Amino acid sequence: MEAIEELALAPCASSQYLRPYRLRYRQNGTKKFWDFMRTHDSVSILIFNSSRQCFVVVKQFRPAVYMCEMERHHPQDFQSKDQDSWCPLLDPLPATEGVTYELCAGLVDKPGLSLEEIACNEVLEECGYDVPITNLKRITSYRSGVGVTGSKQTLFYAEVTDQMKTGEGGGQPEEGELIEVVEVPLQDSMKFAFDEHFPKTTGVIFSFMWFQSNVALGLLEK
Amino acid sequence: MEAIEELALAPCASSQYLRPYRLRYRQNGTKKFWDFMRTHDSVSILIFNSSRQCFVVVKQFRPAVYMCEMERHHPQDFQSKDQDSWCPLLDPLPATEGVTYELCAGLVDKPGLSLEEIACNEVLEECGYDVPITNLKRITSYRSGVGVTGSKQTLFYAEVTDQMKTGEGGGQPEEGELIEVVEVPLQDSMKFAFDEHFPKTTGVIFSFMWFQSNVALGLLEK
Repeated sequence: MEAIEELALAPCASSQYLRPYRLRYRQNGTKKFWDFMRTHDSVSILIFNSSRQCFVVVKQFRPAVYMCEMERHHPQDFQSKDQDSWCPLLDPLPATEGVTYELCAGLVDKPGLSLEEIACNEVLEECGYDVPITNLKRITSYRSGVGVTGSKQTLFYAEVTDQMKTGEGGGQPEEGELIEVVEVPLQDSMKFAFDEHFPKTTGVIFSFMWFQSNVALGLLEK
Repeated sequence: MEAIEELALAPCASSQYLRPYRLRYRQNGTKKFWDFMRTHDSVSILIFNSSRQCFVVVKQFRPAVYMCEMERHHPQDFQSKDQDSWCPLLDPLPATEGVTYELCAGLVDKPGLSLEEIACNEVLEECGYDVPITNLKRITSYRSGVGVTGSKQTLFYAEVTDQMKTGEGGGQPEEGELIEVVEVPLQDSMKFAFDEHFPKTTGVIFSFMWFQSNVALGLLEK
């Protein structure tokens, strides 16, 4: 995953992935506008393997995170670029700077599939567990990125066993996905959640805490 | 806040707020590219008023969230637009569809100020409390929006009292901010956190849970 080479950056005038819009409106009499991006809603899934007493999360190289760190170190890479030219990044940081720990997750981009169906597909594709839809428990939903994207993410909980593991996971290489499945032992999970040396999404921290308050107590009582 | 009128939408070919880039790279031998946006890092602050035993959060109209709901109801508003034309939104949803509950927060866009200084400024501007920097406790940091923006958010905790309230808050109208300060009583806070009728960010839910595990116990013992 971490063999990242031949990096080059260009401004992106048009993109099938990023759809920028401007909204003009009047709020309480004042004219305003706001630039934003349309993106898909998403689902994410907290997976707990009860056979192994661990959380199952994913780890991947995220270009947007990596470039955030690159700008911190080499702000000039983002300055004075021509509209269409590629600028090689000559002094790249280690690829690990762009690797994050995340919940298994996916975009809601298949009309006709329920959120639960999309979630189950992602658990299988990314982590290799074949989870029946009835095993999913909806935790809650929230807005991610209220400034730029505004999209809604719905969080599920799935308890799995070793017997439900039918594949390796890893995502879909033909879609460019390269995903490492990582097991976080329950007993280390809160330390992991608050250790900033492991870059991660809010979803990981929040859902681990949710588990402590809502599920772990039941496990102790079993 | 909720008097939103004269809505019109246009594609946004260039923007001083959204900076789209494309990164080209080779990962484990495979050529890839990824479109992303550069945005600023941010800080957010969980504010607990110990005089009133409540959390202090903010509520605002978020165009990106509103338009996410508009696309759900009227997907045609986003289709077949000319590059430069404004398209009036003729059948708008109630403005409340775009109002979210959030932690007091701000962008890290002032070089020379520490994260803590920026956080204190935001608490004063948005919520009206004058908090000494030494009262801030860093909770943790995480990545928001790993797909599109990759920026880092650092979360602080600030305990305030009624005596520290020196202003009304509400943000900076000259920067287009229109922010309502909302108090969530501690005793209702977990119900609020998981009630999806109140649209909110992950930060609100996560930080309320953090408080329960890390601070509330100490309050009970006092």
